[in-house]
Amino acid sequence: MTARVGPGEISAAAARIAGRIRETPILPMEADAFGVAGLLTLKLECLQHSGSFKARGAFNSLLSVAIPAAGVITASGGNHGGAVAYAARALGHKARIFVPTTSPRAKIDRLRGYGAEVTEIGAAYADAYEASQAVRAETGAVEIHAYDQPATVAGQGTVARELEGQMDGIDTILVAVGGGGLIAGIASWFEGRVRVVGVETEGTPTLTRALAVGRPVDIEVGGLAADALGAKRIGEIAYATARDFVDRVVLVSDDAVRAAQEALWTNVRVIAEPGGATALAGLMAGAYRSEPGEGVVALVCGANTDPASVA
Amino acid sequence: MTARVGPGEISAAAARIAGRIRETPILPMEADAFGVAGLLTLKLECLQHSGSFKARGAFNSLLSVAIPAAGVITASGGNHGGAVAYAARALGHKARIFVPTTSPRAKIDRLRGYGAEVTEIGAAYADAYEASQAVRAETGAVEIHAYDQPATVAGQGTVARELEGQMDGIDTILVAVGGGGLIAGIASWFEGRVRVVGVETEGTPTLTRALAVGRPVDIEVGGLAADALGAKRIGEIAYATARDFVDRVVLVSDDAVRAAQEALWTNVRVIAEPGGATALAGLMAGAYRSEPGEGVVALVCGANTDPASVA
Repeated sequence: MTARVGPGEISAAAARIAGRIRETPILPMEADAFGVAGLLTLKLECLQHSGSFKARGAFNSLLSVAIPAAGVITASGGNHGGAVAYAARALGHKARIFVPTTSPRAKIDRLRGYGAEVTEIGAAYADAYEASQAVRAETGAVEIHAYDQPATVAGQGTVARELEGQMDGIDTILVAVGGGGLIAGIASWFEGRVRVVGVETEGTPTLTRALAVGRPVDIEVGGLAADALGAKRIGEIAYATARDFVDRVVLVSDDAVRAAQEALWTNVRVIAEPGGATALAGLMAGAYRSEPGEGVVALVCGANTDPASVA
Repeated sequence: MTARVGPGEISAAAARIAGRIRETPILPMEADAFGVAGLLTLKLECLQHSGSFKARGAFNSLLSVAIPAAGVITASGGNHGGAVAYAARALGHKARIFVPTTSPRAKIDRLRGYGAEVTEIGAAYADAYEASQAVRAETGAVEIHAYDQPATVAGQGTVARELEGQMDGIDTILVAVGGGGLIAGIASWFEGRVRVVGVETEGTPTLTRALAVGRPVDIEVGGLAADALGAKRIGEIAYATARDFVDRVVLVSDDAVRAAQEALWTNVRVIAEPGGATALAGLMAGAYRSEPGEGVVALVCGANTDPASVA
């Protein structure tokens, strides 16, 4: 039986990480912004510590267990690793991070800048994960999984709780999906009160494939957003949560993601990484069609990219 | 006698431009962020329409007078021109913009993207201004001054009114100064209730020089922020307002501005142009030293730069 997370755990997580994470701003958009129907609001989680929502899950994970002298260990294509490194330093723990060799140089440099010990190994996330497991067994470091642990999911869910405290009239929220920790947390918070729409790129359709097959399955990942959304399979928690509380999952092309990144810069002067612009791309490309009067939130969940790649 | 602007005009401006401009978010910073003492909050006016606070003054100006078929005309190193072009298009008017040839290509392209007719002329703002005056006399177009008209100042002042509605505990606000429209509007709103600190770069010390000499005087401008802060002299309204309601004006180097730009990207994933980072530079460089417990706001007032120049 798969662990699931409920609103109670998310509220507990919010209390645990209070003061450690930023309440990120919302930005209500004018009519017809981005060519999207309805009342669009951007949630600028890209301004979070370490440049993505992952700081929420990382702090909640590190504050939920006793951390030994060997510190914490994780495998991450970038954003989760950065968040764990950031949180570990803030809390005075050692962090050892395993990343695939496909990770952008800027992300790896940033991990080292946060004081983490970084090991580059393997071409895909799964390879880096395997290597981290061996070292974990040897050293006794605590593993912080990138998405498929209840403390991680509960931490990510705090962004939905925070959002609901910031505005009324949320009918629909669009969320990028990689390993699924973010959408699991958000859907677990709303429990069907709000339409939760997952957005995946055509190169990283972990949840789409799992729902089609009827269980999480390994997929080949690739494309523009692979470094952030390129988990090999959807998490068990995310899959179980999505079946009950995610309205649908839609796909967008890399070109649609690029267009959303450019539009965020041109219209709002916000820099988003590909995964951070994926939710908005779902709206702009019409993969999810909002209606006049519909209160729609697009979560801009990360900004860890070279700004020169956007504009 | 110089026209001054009061809170009444600023409230009227706020009503006039409501729905046309964005309420831009504030972002309270964690302790010691940017190495600054006190309780620092960023006001992210860089997310405003057209990428800077200038949209406020432009909309207020265009909505305060009848606009003839010849439309509006202005001279601007970039941000004001962009704001006038943006506002004119939104309101269905023609816009003709004169800019010095030193304006960044990206800004000029953006003016044209907003549908404005752009004339590049002269090496400095004053030259472009002179050319615009000749055409204005000939065509009957309405002039929208970049900073030294009451409607412009009242419009810029709405950012202070909005800020005060968003948070309590503002002791001090730091504001970049070029022609002075922004600081005039802000100081006119607060009327001494909040410590208003102007920040200028060493290459654009219009208010510093005017206060030293006892009246607005022409200066040579240059350096990193000249395209946005490089007015040749401080406006009459700004000078008169500053004498009464600006606590002090401090200077920062171009290196300090660059460091603030980099820190905004690294810590908060915010892109600011040099003029947009100048207020924070005043704090980071210690040109203004905030104290523990002091509620300090740094206004990030523009983002119209190539993002690649920041990170």
